[in-house]
Amino acid sequence: MTQATPAAASTTAASSTTTPTTRDRLLDAAAGLFYREGVGIGVEALCREAGVSKRSMYQLFGSKDEVLAASLERSAPAHQAFLVPGADERPPRARILHVFERLEQLADRPDFRGCPFVSVSAELKAPDHPASLVARRCKDTLTAFFQEEAERAGADDPALLARQLTVTFDGSGVRAVMQGRGLDGLAVTMARTLLDAAGIGDR
Amino acid sequence: MTQATPAAASTTAASSTTTPTTRDRLLDAAAGLFYREGVGIGVEALCREAGVSKRSMYQLFGSKDEVLAASLERSAPAHQAFLVPGADERPPRARILHVFERLEQLADRPDFRGCPFVSVSAELKAPDHPASLVARRCKDTLTAFFQEEAERAGADDPALLARQLTVTFDGSGVRAVMQGRGLDGLAVTMARTLLDAAGIGDR
Repeated sequence: MTQATPAAASTTAASSTTTPTTRDRLLDAAAGLFYREGVGIGVEALCREAGVSKRSMYQLFGSKDEVLAASLERSAPAHQAFLVPGADERPPRARILHVFERLEQLADRPDFRGCPFVSVSAELKAPDHPASLVARRCKDTLTAFFQEEAERAGADDPALLARQLTVTFDGSGVRAVMQGRGLDGLAVTMARTLLDAAGIGDR
Repeated sequence: MTQATPAAASTTAASSTTTPTTRDRLLDAAAGLFYREGVGIGVEALCREAGVSKRSMYQLFGSKDEVLAASLERSAPAHQAFLVPGADERPPRARILHVFERLEQLADRPDFRGCPFVSVSAELKAPDHPASLVARRCKDTLTAFFQEEAERAGADDPALLARQLTVTFDGSGVRAVMQGRGLDGLAVTMARTLLDAAGIGDR
C-alpha cells in the first residue's frame, strides 16, 4: 500500500525517520482504513489494524470521532505536499495546473476513492463534526492556494476563480469515483478552460 | 420533511394517487433514511422507519444492498424531474442553466446533503455495488441531457462540455456540503463561464 493513497503517503513521510509512537500508528492506520472502508469502521477493526489495544486508544483519545479528526489532520500535510507545488519559478497558470495533473495521477490509481476530505464530509453528513471541520479547513487551504496564484496572475475575481477551481477539483474526483476509472485529462482540460476564461495565460 | 429533499420529493410524487404498498413504503423510507443518515444504517432502523417487519423486507428483497439500489432507482425520476426541465421553447443555454438554478435551490435547504447519487457512491467505495451502478446510470442521464442540449446549441465538443457541466454540478454540491451552507450563485456562474467558453449564447 506504500504511496498508493494520500493516506498511505502520509504514513511513509511521517514514519521514515523516527520510530512511530502508539499515537502515530493509530492515526496512520485510521487514515488508511477510513479512506478505504469509510468512517463507519468500528473501534475494534481500527485497533486491530493499528496493532493497538482499545485501552491504549482510549488513553489517547476520547472517542473514535476524535481519532478520525486527528487522523485527517495528520494526513493533511502529506496530501497537500503531493498536490500543491512548493515555491518554484513557474507562472501561476502552470502552478495551478500542477494540482490537476496530480489529481489525474491519483485518479488513475485503482485504489483511488476520491479526495479524503470530500469523502469524510460526504459520509459524516454533519458539518459540525470535528472531522468535518478539519476537512473543511484542509479544503480551504487548497482554495487559498488557487486564490493566491490567481491574484498573482491578475485575475479579475481571484476569489471566484479559486472557488471554481476547487469545484473542478472536487467534481472531477467525484467523477472518477462514480465512473470507477481515471479522468483521461478532464480535470486538466477543465481547469485550462477556466484559466483561459479568466484571462490567465502562460506567463 | 415533505419536499425537503430529492428523496422526500420522490415519496410525495409516488404516493399521492394510490395507497403505497409495503414495497413502496420500504423504498421511500430507505431513500430518505440513507440520504439523511448514510448507507451504513442497519436493517433494524430501516424497517422501523418504514413500519415494515424484517420478515416482510426479506420477503421482498434479498439484502439491504438490494433495498438501497432499488430505493435509489425509485427516487431517480422525481429527482430528475426536479432538476431537468421538460420540453419547452427555451434555448439550450437557458435549459442547461435551469439545472444549476435548481441545484442552488436545493443547496440552500438546511437538510441538503449533496446529490444522493454522489453520496451513495462516495459512501460505498465500491464501483460495482448494485447501488453504485444505479447511481452511475442516474448521473449519466444528467450528462446525456447536457450533451443533447450542447449538441443542439452547436458546441464544438458537446461530450466534453457535458462532462464539464456534470463536474460543475457535482463539485458544487460537494462544496455546499463541505461548507455547510448554500452556493450563493457559484454553480450558475460557473456553468455560465463554461457555456460562454463553449460559445453557447442566449439563442
